[in-house]
Amino acid sequence: MASQRGLGVAVIGTGKMGADHVRRLHEVISGARVAAVADTEPERAKSLAATIDGCTAYTEPAAAMASGEVDAVLIASPGPAHEAALVDALGHDLPVLCEKPMTPDTASSLRILEAEQRLGHRRIQVGFMRRYDAEYVKLKELLDSGELGAALMLHQRHRNLAMPPGFTDEMLITSSVSHEVDATRWLLGQEIAAVTVHKPKATSLAPAGLNDPQFILLETASGALVDVEIFGHCGYGYQVQAEAVCERGTVRIGDEQGPRVSADGRWGGHVPPDYVERFEDAYDREVQAWVDATRRGEITGPSAWDGYAAAAVCEAGVASQREGGRVGVELAERPGFYA
Amino acid sequence: MASQRGLGVAVIGTGKMGADHVRRLHEVISGARVAAVADTEPERAKSLAATIDGCTAYTEPAAAMASGEVDAVLIASPGPAHEAALVDALGHDLPVLCEKPMTPDTASSLRILEAEQRLGHRRIQVGFMRRYDAEYVKLKELLDSGELGAALMLHQRHRNLAMPPGFTDEMLITSSVSHEVDATRWLLGQEIAAVTVHKPKATSLAPAGLNDPQFILLETASGALVDVEIFGHCGYGYQVQAEAVCERGTVRIGDEQGPRVSADGRWGGHVPPDYVERFEDAYDREVQAWVDATRRGEITGPSAWDGYAAAAVCEAGVASQREGGRVGVELAERPGFYA
Amino acid sequence: MASQRGLGVAVIGTGKMGADHVRRLHEVISGARVAAVADTEPERAKSLAATIDGCTAYTEPAAAMASGEVDAVLIASPGPAHEAALVDALGHDLPVLCEKPMTPDTASSLRILEAEQRLGHRRIQVGFMRRYDAEYVKLKELLDSGELGAALMLHQRHRNLAMPPGFTDEMLITSSVSHEVDATRWLLGQEIAAVTVHKPKATSLAPAGLNDPQFILLETASGALVDVEIFGHCGYGYQVQAEAVCERGTVRIGDEQGPRVSADGRWGGHVPPDYVERFEDAYDREVQAWVDATRRGEITGPSAWDGYAAAAVCEAGVASQREGGRVGVELAERPGFYA
Amino acid sequence: MASQRGLGVAVIGTGKMGADHVRRLHEVISGARVAAVADTEPERAKSLAATIDGCTAYTEPAAAMASGEVDAVLIASPGPAHEAALVDALGHDLPVLCEKPMTPDTASSLRILEAEQRLGHRRIQVGFMRRYDAEYVKLKELLDSGELGAALMLHQRHRNLAMPPGFTDEMLITSSVSHEVDATRWLLGQEIAAVTVHKPKATSLAPAGLNDPQFILLETASGALVDVEIFGHCGYGYQVQAEAVCERGTVRIGDEQGPRVSADGRWGGHVPPDYVERFEDAYDREVQAWVDATRRGEITGPSAWDGYAAAAVCEAGVASQREGGRVGVELAERPGFYA
Repeated sequence: MASQRGLGVAVIGTGKMGADHVRRLHEVISGARVAAVADTEPERAKSLAATIDGCTAYTEPAAAMASGEVDAVLIASPGPAHEAALVDALGHDLPVLCEKPMTPDTASSLRILEAEQRLGHRRIQVGFMRRYDAEYVKLKELLDSGELGAALMLHQRHRNLAMPPGFTDEMLITSSVSHEVDATRWLLGQEIAAVTVHKPKATSLAPAGLNDPQFILLETASGALVDVEIFGHCGYGYQVQAEAVCERGTVRIGDEQGPRVSADGRWGGHVPPDYVERFEDAYDREVQAWVDATRRGEITGPSAWDGYAAAAVCEAGVASQREGGRVGVELAERPGFYA
Repeated sequence: MASQRGLGVAVIGTGKMGADHVRRLHEVISGARVAAVADTEPERAKSLAATIDGCTAYTEPAAAMASGEVDAVLIASPGPAHEAALVDALGHDLPVLCEKPMTPDTASSLRILEAEQRLGHRRIQVGFMRRYDAEYVKLKELLDSGELGAALMLHQRHRNLAMPPGFTDEMLITSSVSHEVDATRWLLGQEIAAVTVHKPKATSLAPAGLNDPQFILLETASGALVDVEIFGHCGYGYQVQAEAVCERGTVRIGDEQGPRVSADGRWGGHVPPDYVERFEDAYDREVQAWVDATRRGEITGPSAWDGYAAAAVCEAGVASQREGGRVGVELAERPGFYA
Repeated sequence: MASQRGLGVAVIGTGKMGADHVRRLHEVISGARVAAVADTEPERAKSLAATIDGCTAYTEPAAAMASGEVDAVLIASPGPAHEAALVDALGHDLPVLCEKPMTPDTASSLRILEAEQRLGHRRIQVGFMRRYDAEYVKLKELLDSGELGAALMLHQRHRNLAMPPGFTDEMLITSSVSHEVDATRWLLGQEIAAVTVHKPKATSLAPAGLNDPQFILLETASGALVDVEIFGHCGYGYQVQAEAVCERGTVRIGDEQGPRVSADGRWGGHVPPDYVERFEDAYDREVQAWVDATRRGEITGPSAWDGYAAAAVCEAGVASQREGGRVGVELAERPGFYA
Repeated sequence: MASQRGLGVAVIGTGKMGADHVRRLHEVISGARVAAVADTEPERAKSLAATIDGCTAYTEPAAAMASGEVDAVLIASPGPAHEAALVDALGHDLPVLCEKPMTPDTASSLRILEAEQRLGHRRIQVGFMRRYDAEYVKLKELLDSGELGAALMLHQRHRNLAMPPGFTDEMLITSSVSHEVDATRWLLGQEIAAVTVHKPKATSLAPAGLNDPQFILLETASGALVDVEIFGHCGYGYQVQAEAVCERGTVRIGDEQGPRVSADGRWGGHVPPDYVERFEDAYDREVQAWVDATRRGEITGPSAWDGYAAAAVCEAGVASQREGGRVGVELAERPGFYA
């Protein structure tokens, strides 16, 4: 599909995440080049395009896709703009890597599923990049090998130094826990049937009005129980850990690594401040894998169904957060198309 | 109180736990001696007493206590026999170290609280020995120091290689999780207000009829949320871990220690098979601290109130186990006597 | 220098290491392409070239470099062939990444230094890839920051599962310890003044005639003492560790990472079988950094001087191995060209 | 041998170490009591004796031993006073636990060996308490099991926060490294044949005139090579680590344990400030084992031969320190008496 010059990618959205993907495609990823950028702010798109040979700036995603220069689309615009861009990409039959969330709610997610099925082949990969983190990959392999028996529980910790201003209870679920929602579905290979959100005593160091931390229970179709601690203002760094409890053993990932210093009466090391340091390699691997698969005409990563399912679980989570108690997850029947 | 020969202790119950305490008092603990043993099986008591100079065997705890040779009582008989032995000890105004559970239910526990208050001074210490484990002690000191701010959550893991035959769902709460119940109350310095028991997919390696593992949520008076994984048949050893989540940091204890071997393509170490190896030092410290305090005429460890409160939480846990959902913990008003 | 199609690299030598670099340049590295491969075995070169668009096979490195298609050279042929290829590359004024050792002895290394100085600008980078490993980089940053004071000692462990047949005592120094020689010079920022090789009791599991393990002391110009355990047949995997002892603290890198499994009475994880798994990322970063610098017309990595200095230390090491005792390292005066 | 009141111990020397042993025997150790204390400063002995029922103060060790109240002797006076006290104890045929060093040099150590042999049975245990540390014990068991094959190397680290004023180069060997000397002989089960002391660049944070740290190589009779880093002023705490390199695997002990805190951008824990915190349990186990063995009429710990051998290795170490180079260890032939 791509010319010998590498896969020509249009990057939609040039904010922090989009600009980082532009840099990644330009400097890190083999076999791809940034053919176009699109942003509703024309100046931002133009100044970014100016730094890259052969890259054109657009304000409309559809215009970029129609230019004939584009082999594939990476969507990094704000969530509410995703649906239109996805529809455009499907209209041009272009492969898409769409940052999470695929769309902000289940209704729009279902429309995307329908559109992709009408197209007749899969084109959409959703940006759940934990599936590309080295430790998560090894945990998945170990679970799939069956040597530890069935997974019964999964304990997850997701701690942030601090959240940006305006972060809400709801965003703790839709923006943060959505990573654990996908990790759970992927690691355990099954859907999530119910969600219960608990609100422990809140830290005095979070902004007023935010119930932080929260503790979420997910029940999977097979009855595995999953707990997620989401802590937006833990105050000391970014820490993501998971422990699978299986019939014959347990596996823990996410312990801090790197130099171990002994000084000043203490031993230990550094906690990264944010996801950039912790998951930079995973982002690189994600985009590289998408470029490679796309050049082979294949699709290998998290699908639009995965994007939809995460949205459905998050909706149940937000309902539990608001009304309390256990909320069942209502999923549409999974089309064979996404088997 | 004790003669120069050391505190004369009557050990009530000479099963596995009682015999181990006899050995401990005889060989390890400074300042104490085993003056009497009592068991409903006279031969077992006699053969044990015969191994120790100056130790007399009894079938009735009350007879041992009335002998004039006894300065203090250690109760290690089965739980249903505790109430009578405690009443006898209080009747003779003797200090008691009573293995957990203090009594099997809250009604009997309340009767003990009343009896001790009638006596007018505290005599009863309950055998929650985690309070004497070096790592738990350091965690408690760190929480009490306030340097990490308020505790918001506490994650606990309690895994056993396997349980003895006949172990029931109810015993997962009353015999196992009761340790975490006390650890929670002690570490956080507050009562537990409600309990919810969850039953994940059960391991196929536990006996039929046992829902193993289980996952218990405890809510404390201040709103801290505590989760406990109890796993009776994890299959690989005995593992007890805790992680406190505070406003300014987290603290984890219970990671495996000792020699780290690299061989056969693996690095790592040994998981102890049972609580004896893991907590032997804590048992020694517990009994030593009790002996020392008793010789000074003081009482320092977990009180009868702690025994009662644990029973009350376990009753709520068993109710949640049976009927599902969240069950509030009903506690009597705490007497100033136990302040 | 490179066309828009990316830096055209000639890979000299298509054995295991060369073929791996071809794959890396083709599939992983952004901004480069494999323009030519050269090998004394024509069939091997041809079949490799056939897998890559626009790649030509040669038997003579010089012919590849003269073809006009080549912007840079990566030398991965056997050590004795390096000098001629380096001379050819300098003759064509092409940037080179040359696998270690730069050349097999100091006499030939000195000739290369002279040739590069005659050319008048630096073109050669030597393949000491530990400088690109994430943990080594962090250790270097910490030492350079000065916050731990001066480095006084450096303890290093270099263990291999097993060595290929025919591996000799001498190769333990020139092929294995040469990594620690460069790491020492780079981390401490000074030359090595003397070498003493010790031969402990040999493992019965190494081939007859090989003194394995060995223990090497390096003394640096400032008096820091460095020890290196080289173990060719440790039998359990590939393990590279370092610990710097400074005036105000110590730093350890190389502890095993990744999933921590508890099962079968043990906790722990996997030891990688070889350098490919352990240092794959470092190789990628090394070649990427070389490509990036080359495209900018810069040279940033280990220089020909570093290649020469390592050869001089290894020569002293081999002398100590043969004759016993401490052997001083004789270094030519460092030209300002390599300052 | 001991009365029913427990083994009556005379503690010789009531400085810091002696007073700590008095406390230990009085409060921690089962089956023993402090019957006498002796010190050249009468007031110090008297005020200590006054705190313990049935304890008499002496200025002369011999007088304490002759009192008829003493079943065993614990020598904790300064090293130069050990020989006389040992001779007295052997003269009264009393079991002795003698703090290290047994005597300050090999000549006096040999006289003690002869005196004990003349007595005809062993009475002396030397205070090498690392043999009672839980991790060292597990390492010893693992080495003795043979499952990792023969031990080829042993890497040891011995770091102190700071040394008392007046600490000399020589004392780094005789007072500090003597622990590793005994640990080496015990763990590997063989004598040490030669010593080489290296003096790296010294820390600027040690007092002038002290070469700190030092790096000592020990060669054992079977050819195993042992290295010891002794660092008197590492500035951050007390750290004792060992790693055995065997034919089939490696074993590391001494990594820091206890609560793992994540806060302020760092993960890790506490480094103990001194040997008291790190090895308190080992001291307790050592004295308890000596009391238990003595009451059974046995002798089980490090013998006078072990005390002599350590002195001989330290003498060679001091010679290497002064004159440089490798110094052979001259050992008398080991009498069958100490087999």
